[in-house]
Amino acid sequence: MRRRLAAFALVVVLGTSALHADDATPPPSLTAKEILAKSTAAEWRAPDPRDLLVMQLPAGRVLIELAPDFTPLHAANIRTLVREHYFDGLAVIRVQDNFVTQWGDPDDDDNADRSKMKPLGKAKKTLPPEYTRPIDPKLEWTPLPDGDVYAPEVGFSEGFPVARDRASGEEWLTHCYGMVGVARDVGPETGSGSSLYMVIGQAPRGLDRNLAIAGRVIEGTELLAALPRGTGPLGFYAKPAERLPIRTVTVAADLPPAQRPAVEILRTDSPSFAALVEAKRNRRDAFYTRPAGKIDLCSITVPTRPVAGK
Amino acid sequence: MRRRLAAFALVVVLGTSALHADDATPPPSLTAKEILAKSTAAEWRAPDPRDLLVMQLPAGRVLIELAPDFTPLHAANIRTLVREHYFDGLAVIRVQDNFVTQWGDPDDDDNADRSKMKPLGKAKKTLPPEYTRPIDPKLEWTPLPDGDVYAPEVGFSEGFPVARDRASGEEWLTHCYGMVGVARDVGPETGSGSSLYMVIGQAPRGLDRNLAIAGRVIEGTELLAALPRGTGPLGFYAKPAERLPIRTVTVAADLPPAQRPAVEILRTDSPSFAALVEAKRNRRDAFYTRPAGKIDLCSITVPTRPVAGK
Repeated sequence: MRRRLAAFALVVVLGTSALHADDATPPPSLTAKEILAKSTAAEWRAPDPRDLLVMQLPAGRVLIELAPDFTPLHAANIRTLVREHYFDGLAVIRVQDNFVTQWGDPDDDDNADRSKMKPLGKAKKTLPPEYTRPIDPKLEWTPLPDGDVYAPEVGFSEGFPVARDRASGEEWLTHCYGMVGVARDVGPETGSGSSLYMVIGQAPRGLDRNLAIAGRVIEGTELLAALPRGTGPLGFYAKPAERLPIRTVTVAADLPPAQRPAVEILRTDSPSFAALVEAKRNRRDAFYTRPAGKIDLCSITVPTRPVAGK
Repeated sequence: MRRRLAAFALVVVLGTSALHADDATPPPSLTAKEILAKSTAAEWRAPDPRDLLVMQLPAGRVLIELAPDFTPLHAANIRTLVREHYFDGLAVIRVQDNFVTQWGDPDDDDNADRSKMKPLGKAKKTLPPEYTRPIDPKLEWTPLPDGDVYAPEVGFSEGFPVARDRASGEEWLTHCYGMVGVARDVGPETGSGSSLYMVIGQAPRGLDRNLAIAGRVIEGTELLAALPRGTGPLGFYAKPAERLPIRTVTVAADLPPAQRPAVEILRTDSPSFAALVEAKRNRRDAFYTRPAGKIDLCSITVPTRPVAGK
């Protein structure tokens, strides 16, 4: 007997199962795998290669999709840094349990020799905050039905988890697992994208609207989340030898087409995405006796898949 | 400049700061460290050594506090298993990114040689589910003020994160980061405590009321969260060599007093805990321009500290 803790197949109600028409028990359900298998090609999108970063770590590849609809100045500055090979040879410098993994220049630190800091080249040293943006009715908006502790409204927009406040007219990316934020110093305009972090624990939503979010890791969250935690203050690695080197970061558009990552992301305005959300809200299979009937924003991960045949 | 991403000192308003009496800006605030430094001895409790499990892994010690107020049959059965040295020599068998780390008997698996399974001895092979319990007015109840996506009411009780539904009269432990649940097979009465899991990502609250929660890791979450993710189905380790051996698990009460872990846990009905919660709801320092004004249940970690002088 495999103790499954949860058979954990994500399941969805088959609304048309005639076999169960006379049965008060909800019908059996599709698993997430089955929902995705039934999805159509049009429900998937290839990320724009200009917005796709390929970070090569010793253990493998991390793919980050930038979010220029929400943080365009940061996307542009990070692209500039990447194209200058700014990140190549830098390192993961901080892993704080249940919080974030952060990477950048180890010498970008009050306690380090700042004369050794890698120059930012043509990239801007500071940027306007871009913590929120005015709600844009032209952007996709797929709201979730179950509310949120932190914001009046939450949902997905262009593939990203987003919160909205119609009273203030703002929307913003949220600090869910795998989201990539822009580290900064105390002042709100001190971030440049030269140091980034990924959320590796319970969503620290209190950071929302206080830091810019540059995008989301769409492949390889585990490579950043499974690292040893730092023992210095705030989880910084106490010893240089503990740092994980970053081999290279590349904009996918700068790679020859054959070398670009062949991945697709499920559109968050697609019927299959809606089916996945509903499946996670109400799991109906032999394992779950009490479907939650609810789902919170950061419990939903947008699926990514390899492009068939590549 | 250390790019802090968040100076991340947890801060709380000093209500009596005369220096800022004439200032519209909120006064400077205490950090979490300062709040804890000002806490009184009576605000801390030593866990009952009968409810404290010491799990020795190659990299160090994990401490688990059982929750007999909520899952007494599971606490008793796990204690029986531990006292039989059931877990000694077993292993971490599964690490699924943004979900759970699970440990137990590698042969407790449909694909393994089940004839090799370690016997449970005097422990029960199955238990009543204990997914919820009737609300007990005698238990401490420290509600949180900001609502919850999944439950009508949430807060802390006896040091644990708990949800309540007064309509049904039930309360239950919630699947927050670091909580320890009881793996089971499909049937609700198939769990025994012989295989356990710890949450290592966004709280999978959809599991609430579908699995029993045995307790919480109060020290060493990072030792279970920083492990390589499994590449088999559901994050099970594909190769036996990947498994992390468990050296021993001991009930602290069975150790000589001098060898028992000397740790204390902040009482969740204490003023200092309330101050920490308020500090996290509304961070007031130079770093945060927009305090959230809200906090969700699973974003609060109950502090633990070594006993002074030990």
